[in-house]
Amino acid sequence: MNIEPEFMRRIARAAAAETLPRFRQRGEVANKEAGGFDPVTEADREAERAIRAVIKERFPDHGILGEEHGRENHGASHVWVIDPIDGTRAFISGLPVWGTLVGLTIDGDAVAGLMSQPFTGELFYADARGAFYEGPGGDRRLTTRKTTSLSEATLFTTTPALFRGVARNRYDELERMVRLARYGTDCYAFAMIAAGTVDIVADPGLQSYDIVGLIPIIERAGGVVTTFEGGPAEPGGDILAAATPELHAAAMERLRG
Amino acid sequence: MNIEPEFMRRIARAAAAETLPRFRQRGEVANKEAGGFDPVTEADREAERAIRAVIKERFPDHGILGEEHGRENHGASHVWVIDPIDGTRAFISGLPVWGTLVGLTIDGDAVAGLMSQPFTGELFYADARGAFYEGPGGDRRLTTRKTTSLSEATLFTTTPALFRGVARNRYDELERMVRLARYGTDCYAFAMIAAGTVDIVADPGLQSYDIVGLIPIIERAGGVVTTFEGGPAEPGGDILAAATPELHAAAMERLRG
Repeated sequence: MNIEPEFMRRIARAAAAETLPRFRQRGEVANKEAGGFDPVTEADREAERAIRAVIKERFPDHGILGEEHGRENHGASHVWVIDPIDGTRAFISGLPVWGTLVGLTIDGDAVAGLMSQPFTGELFYADARGAFYEGPGGDRRLTTRKTTSLSEATLFTTTPALFRGVARNRYDELERMVRLARYGTDCYAFAMIAAGTVDIVADPGLQSYDIVGLIPIIERAGGVVTTFEGGPAEPGGDILAAATPELHAAAMERLRG
Repeated sequence: MNIEPEFMRRIARAAAAETLPRFRQRGEVANKEAGGFDPVTEADREAERAIRAVIKERFPDHGILGEEHGRENHGASHVWVIDPIDGTRAFISGLPVWGTLVGLTIDGDAVAGLMSQPFTGELFYADARGAFYEGPGGDRRLTTRKTTSLSEATLFTTTPALFRGVARNRYDELERMVRLARYGTDCYAFAMIAAGTVDIVADPGLQSYDIVGLIPIIERAGGVVTTFEGGPAEPGGDILAAATPELHAAAMERLRG
């Protein structure tokens, strides 16, 4: 099945109507986990509710899996996976590098997806036809950069502190081999692989909803996204995305156990 | 002397005309230092040239100090300090958290300044009247958040790797005491202190041009910015900015030697 661009835009608009008015407001931040700091804002919950409503109106038999409101239609072959605000820390800090992630899986494979950033007015999406960008600078097809060697690559991760024990040693070795490393951008760095301005993202411990929406965008733009061991990224886990198959293989060689 | 807002906007527009068309283009990146990766793009050089032209037309007797083209009018009491693209790594990675920084010092004190982000269409500036924001979400006066204790504070730094030896131990202790820590946003995190969505930024080894434009924005919004030792921030060095005097004192207690 194909998902038309206007449906992608409708999801993005519904989410933006809940997130954008609450961005840079100084409201309370709820804690999901006592003791830790897990910012879940009203924006997060209301955006997911709005996205679910758009999907259910159009595809009432599809399954839905979201960060905030759990699972609907267990057992459906078509399942939408939602992260209303990926990068909640960026959101509450006022930085425009968070995004709304929505992906469609069929029998577990991600086949369509979107990442939207309403403050910058950007929409990255992919369907059966390819990966596309709409926003400032003009609409265009997304294609990765053709970087094949680590010494020419830029590398992003949320923070090296998420790599533990020997995994941290492996990450540090990878970081030493690349041209430039940078931290802290969540979904935005994955979108930049598709846009051709970032080469590698390595993020351990992702949930399914952190990555499903991004998989088709990266793959249709020419990139590769798997676990550190080379398995499918859809269930989440330790996720490695790269601009080309060659670069992905070189990075995976360094990261896998 | 006061610098009228329209002059701030003219500087921002002149810089944007050089930076924005080159943002997310896949051009070559020049290396200032052989061996290291110090991205200086054509955008950087041309933006500084354009900013200098705007300043020199209006204030021919003022001094100018810029990252790319050095110093003019040695010995002037009024000196403009320019960083055409602060966050060149963000720029070449396609992330909209770089900025153009321009500040005016009189006898070494920063009295007016701006940070502009042309992709998001944001201008943060300060003059004798206060600190102001123009951009998406509406124009407004900037005021810091009234956070006074470390346990309630959010902390940003470019990367902990910039803290060496015992300074790293001190930084790590500070990070453990705060509510949330995040990496990698250069000038944007400093602007977010003024906007009231970030509480502390600690960045070692800054140049004068990395901070002068931001000092009046943070101070006029209610924040404090000094070196880790409490000295003036205008010459650069290890720079600590915080939302309130109380919070600045608490963070400095942890960071200073």
